[in-house]
Amino acid sequence: MASNSLGSFFRITSFGESHGPLYGVVIDGCPPNILIDKTQIQQALNRRAPGNSPFTSPRQEPDQAEWLSGLFEGRSTGAPITLLIHNQAYDSRPYDMQKDHLRPGHAQYSYLQKYGIFDHRGGGRASARETVCRVAAGALANQILEAKGIHIYAYLQSMGSHPLQAPLPYTLQDNHSLKEQIYQHPFYSLDANTIAPWSDYLSSIQQEGDSVGGIVSFLATGVPAGLGDPLYEKCEACLASAMMSIPASKGFEIGEGFQAAFLKGSEHNDLFIQKESGIQFASQHSGGLLGGITTGQPLWGRVAFKAPSSIKKEQKTVDLKGNPVLYQSEPGSKHDPCVAIRAVPVVEAMCALVILDRLLVQGALLS
Amino acid sequence: MASNSLGSFFRITSFGESHGPLYGVVIDGCPPNILIDKTQIQQALNRRAPGNSPFTSPRQEPDQAEWLSGLFEGRSTGAPITLLIHNQAYDSRPYDMQKDHLRPGHAQYSYLQKYGIFDHRGGGRASARETVCRVAAGALANQILEAKGIHIYAYLQSMGSHPLQAPLPYTLQDNHSLKEQIYQHPFYSLDANTIAPWSDYLSSIQQEGDSVGGIVSFLATGVPAGLGDPLYEKCEACLASAMMSIPASKGFEIGEGFQAAFLKGSEHNDLFIQKESGIQFASQHSGGLLGGITTGQPLWGRVAFKAPSSIKKEQKTVDLKGNPVLYQSEPGSKHDPCVAIRAVPVVEAMCALVILDRLLVQGALLS
Amino acid sequence: MASNSLGSFFRITSFGESHGPLYGVVIDGCPPNILIDKTQIQQALNRRAPGNSPFTSPRQEPDQAEWLSGLFEGRSTGAPITLLIHNQAYDSRPYDMQKDHLRPGHAQYSYLQKYGIFDHRGGGRASARETVCRVAAGALANQILEAKGIHIYAYLQSMGSHPLQAPLPYTLQDNHSLKEQIYQHPFYSLDANTIAPWSDYLSSIQQEGDSVGGIVSFLATGVPAGLGDPLYEKCEACLASAMMSIPASKGFEIGEGFQAAFLKGSEHNDLFIQKESGIQFASQHSGGLLGGITTGQPLWGRVAFKAPSSIKKEQKTVDLKGNPVLYQSEPGSKHDPCVAIRAVPVVEAMCALVILDRLLVQGALLS
Amino acid sequence: MASNSLGSFFRITSFGESHGPLYGVVIDGCPPNILIDKTQIQQALNRRAPGNSPFTSPRQEPDQAEWLSGLFEGRSTGAPITLLIHNQAYDSRPYDMQKDHLRPGHAQYSYLQKYGIFDHRGGGRASARETVCRVAAGALANQILEAKGIHIYAYLQSMGSHPLQAPLPYTLQDNHSLKEQIYQHPFYSLDANTIAPWSDYLSSIQQEGDSVGGIVSFLATGVPAGLGDPLYEKCEACLASAMMSIPASKGFEIGEGFQAAFLKGSEHNDLFIQKESGIQFASQHSGGLLGGITTGQPLWGRVAFKAPSSIKKEQKTVDLKGNPVLYQSEPGSKHDPCVAIRAVPVVEAMCALVILDRLLVQGALLS
Repeated sequence: MASNSLGSFFRITSFGESHGPLYGVVIDGCPPNILIDKTQIQQALNRRAPGNSPFTSPRQEPDQAEWLSGLFEGRSTGAPITLLIHNQAYDSRPYDMQKDHLRPGHAQYSYLQKYGIFDHRGGGRASARETVCRVAAGALANQILEAKGIHIYAYLQSMGSHPLQAPLPYTLQDNHSLKEQIYQHPFYSLDANTIAPWSDYLSSIQQEGDSVGGIVSFLATGVPAGLGDPLYEKCEACLASAMMSIPASKGFEIGEGFQAAFLKGSEHNDLFIQKESGIQFASQHSGGLLGGITTGQPLWGRVAFKAPSSIKKEQKTVDLKGNPVLYQSEPGSKHDPCVAIRAVPVVEAMCALVILDRLLVQGALLS
Repeated sequence: MASNSLGSFFRITSFGESHGPLYGVVIDGCPPNILIDKTQIQQALNRRAPGNSPFTSPRQEPDQAEWLSGLFEGRSTGAPITLLIHNQAYDSRPYDMQKDHLRPGHAQYSYLQKYGIFDHRGGGRASARETVCRVAAGALANQILEAKGIHIYAYLQSMGSHPLQAPLPYTLQDNHSLKEQIYQHPFYSLDANTIAPWSDYLSSIQQEGDSVGGIVSFLATGVPAGLGDPLYEKCEACLASAMMSIPASKGFEIGEGFQAAFLKGSEHNDLFIQKESGIQFASQHSGGLLGGITTGQPLWGRVAFKAPSSIKKEQKTVDLKGNPVLYQSEPGSKHDPCVAIRAVPVVEAMCALVILDRLLVQGALLS
Repeated sequence: MASNSLGSFFRITSFGESHGPLYGVVIDGCPPNILIDKTQIQQALNRRAPGNSPFTSPRQEPDQAEWLSGLFEGRSTGAPITLLIHNQAYDSRPYDMQKDHLRPGHAQYSYLQKYGIFDHRGGGRASARETVCRVAAGALANQILEAKGIHIYAYLQSMGSHPLQAPLPYTLQDNHSLKEQIYQHPFYSLDANTIAPWSDYLSSIQQEGDSVGGIVSFLATGVPAGLGDPLYEKCEACLASAMMSIPASKGFEIGEGFQAAFLKGSEHNDLFIQKESGIQFASQHSGGLLGGITTGQPLWGRVAFKAPSSIKKEQKTVDLKGNPVLYQSEPGSKHDPCVAIRAVPVVEAMCALVILDRLLVQGALLS
Repeated sequence: MASNSLGSFFRITSFGESHGPLYGVVIDGCPPNILIDKTQIQQALNRRAPGNSPFTSPRQEPDQAEWLSGLFEGRSTGAPITLLIHNQAYDSRPYDMQKDHLRPGHAQYSYLQKYGIFDHRGGGRASARETVCRVAAGALANQILEAKGIHIYAYLQSMGSHPLQAPLPYTLQDNHSLKEQIYQHPFYSLDANTIAPWSDYLSSIQQEGDSVGGIVSFLATGVPAGLGDPLYEKCEACLASAMMSIPASKGFEIGEGFQAAFLKGSEHNDLFIQKESGIQFASQHSGGLLGGITTGQPLWGRVAFKAPSSIKKEQKTVDLKGNPVLYQSEPGSKHDPCVAIRAVPVVEAMCALVILDRLLVQGALLS
């Protein structure tokens, strides 16, 4: 079934494969007359690009966007906007040698069950490289949101066995330098004190030929009240679906999430208080939503990512005929030891895509 | 926006309000020629119904389904099937007294922001009583799934501050008595040893006039490989959206979920092994999916529910004009101290609705 | 596949069968805070109801709407609005005798091919009586549209072998008495001079035990510019789909329709002229649209209806096993000699549903 | 709103502009493992391409498809297939001179009303050149359909003031040479006797600087019974929507269409008869559908196209400020005198897209 599209008003359709010539994304429903800042979108792509640090895939991809359609004199016209990102640094030869080996934790098995055919080179359509499309579209969404005073932050809140870091304060105001600060942190996290211990830890994981998971938090400020629709298009349902569509994501929380299950009603309820600015909330446990509809408070939550399946350690597996074989990630293949790091700009992008779509559904961008 | 429908092939549309005359659900896309067992559907409604135990809302509702359309001589015809469940035991008077008070943790505030109008009696459309529609439709879905050898179990895995119970074994075969056993447990849980301590705990919570959250697990066996569609309709994305649309849900996990973030790739990867029955997996960390597509292994995960917002304890709040007032759940009002208990049949229903819809999308029910 | 719903923002879901207890419609996405005039909706249902004249089905149905959900103190709340219309006058016995006979021109054959099951009593889900749901929802849509100055007229422009009548002038201003005048005409047409000849003609058709087709025209005034979306949700594409979903419809035209194929560009182009009210058009050949988007001019077109398939004349057919049999519409069965008459309020309703949905998609009702 | 996509299972998304660098189409939902014949798809593009005859636009475009994604070793993988068709022969300079003049019959006006911005060069997104995307995707659909024995024919049945030609016989069997014969006819029609008079006529129209409309018929053989879904996704509703989304289309008929309105029930009903091959129909008035669902008989109907709006004759119009000006199609601009000719492969493509999508919805391609 056609399933490579996300969103109803601001709708993206992605195409391309990890070991094909390119990826592309069609952005349908962009409001007209918006002057697009291509540099800002390229910057977002650069943040997601591999090769930025010793802790991401060494695959060298410039990820330079090529703009194909939808702009006139630099402005959106209401027509679909299409971008291509070419693949340059892929080498399919390592994959050929083990093409009949079932790779543990990899979509190759389920794709073969579903489609009866699989491009054994790289991850095909299941490759996390597809997130380049999401980041491009999300960056465009972010431009529109930021002009409306909506700002989205994402950051790595934990890596591997390290405990959850202190979160961003929910009272955060628009803070441009903070976003830059996050993306200058080698793990796209908040606290400079984590750099040394996390570096040591991830280096040792890499030396073992292993990988680790991580948790990415997001926070959106300036979100107007009234977004989301009862009953089955609650704002958190839309966010959950978008986040769980990111490769390697295994869990989603809004507000306190699973921690909320351990609290009493008297502890979790966010009490209403009167402030100069009008009715506000004394706390932010709910994550900025009540009954699936935004309250005007910051929207926040978390996404859990598993460790990348592709590891250099030898693993026992079978081939397509069921014969036991040993599998080892291809020598020349290029993988992330912790995909959650580069998932940070992806979570930011998915958050932007969902919020903008809900805004457009609500007609909240018309004025 | 129209948002009271769920599913694409097996599509439900729900209507009705907590303090209106009834709820109803239209089930569109039921395969034809299926002999419907109305008793089984009523049984599922009874499990969700309030008043079954001292630990659920005392609102007395028989929740007897009235069948309106879509059957001919007891069989589905392909036409939409509609059921009504009448409200009987609601009393709106207690709500009238505090109708201008903003109820903490309640959708009244966000609905007012969105719609400018709110039926102050009960929860209106945001009431958890709407789940009666989901359970009716889910029970019908379950009949179809069970005839195909697909069995879904849900149970309360933790309540309030109590730690997570041991989960169901993922090697579980179809086990009818287990489902009955769960629903005979007063907390819809697995272990009889929890009954006494959980009862004591919840009684004390009730006496405080407070409430608690909980975590519901689900497990589906017999699910064929190949369900779910890349990229944005991954099976876990569909499940996450459905679960996060349940009132009071705050988090979703597939497989190890957030725990996966703390594991290494070599620990999380489910290795392939050859068994007599064909290629199998040595472990079940992934939750039965790879790349968003089912592997043929059991599908499992969890949903976190916050404590009910409606508590008898006095809470500080403001009225619609911002004046500070004290709010206390209405004396005659009827609330659950732990909504996660009655959420068990709802999680089971949502799981059934998503799996059946994915099966129909896949054409997997045609043979 | 779930297909009993129409619209994206103002979305109706219909259920019920001709020989079941009732029909019903769920209207999801009605804007909140609208005071609903139930009398006006009942009036629309009465216009569609059978038994109004000697030239419609003699089946006596009061078609009294029962309101189930979605209103609070007479106003819409944003929740789904549900209405039931009970069936009273059906008698299934005549159908039992010929239940294995394939009825010419009837959906029984294709439904059997598709579903393998068919409720042989009446038309089941394919019965034109389902249009009662469309008229109820369309009348609600019309209330909202009229408050915005949008007025929709439909009328029978030709009946059987009679030629097309002169159309409504496209310069028509809001004219309440005109609508009443149409519905007082026994054929829901414009010209009182047609009453006598059309009555004679249809009486003779009835005496032959035969039926005839007809053409219904629609005209919508006050439609703002900018409705409809390129490329695949052009306003005329949405209208065409809605009209072709009406039972017995066989053709759709926007503006000059098929006649446009015989004109030259210099004849068909509507020239722009400057008037006091701003830029206007010198003619109205296009039907109020350019490139699929409304121009602010009146929207007009036509829908062709075939003669009802159910006739009293004996027809040669076969039974389910292929044996030749003679089929005659059941003696006690109740059919229209010209369904296009009662299709007039249905075409009006479908036009209202599409325009309101497009307005809501466009956000044009928000101010 | 996102509206550049068509179909639910076999879903196309088109992008690009007439005077931009290219057009492109993403085909999402193509069944896997199909060996794609690129030559056949190029052939379909060539038929739609301008410059093939003195009676089509002289714009020279090779319309060579560039394949970007979705194939592995020549086969579909289930991933989205993307094609680009580059624009080469556009010259935007003629448009600059009259960029503030409202072009009669052109979408420029309604687009400006909707979006507040319009790429004045060529038709922008409203250009009929976008149909290159439909033809590419439709040709791919046709490959899949033809392998299942479904064959679609389209042809010009009338041009300008000439009367409707005799239609294709509905008893037509798969006839490859017929399709070739149609596309060798300079007007993509059936009867060689029309070539001379139509050529003379269209030459004189061209000399006047004018244009004409036309009617395109379609016929699909081998369509299985059971396609289409009651009530709002009837097969003819899907076809009507698709056809009315083609630029310049003004009317749609299924079967007898508007002619059905003038027939009696006893004339229009297709009687059932028993043949060796099973139950068949004695006539084909209905167009291959009953109750919106295919009967297994040939599917046939018509689409009316208006004359192209762009003519060389001088027309009175106004500029954006309302000042009267004279407008004449730009000297160097390239327009068709009868767009209905090149609409023939487009109608064929839309028919293929709708039928394949309905087949996939029905699961009818799974075996």
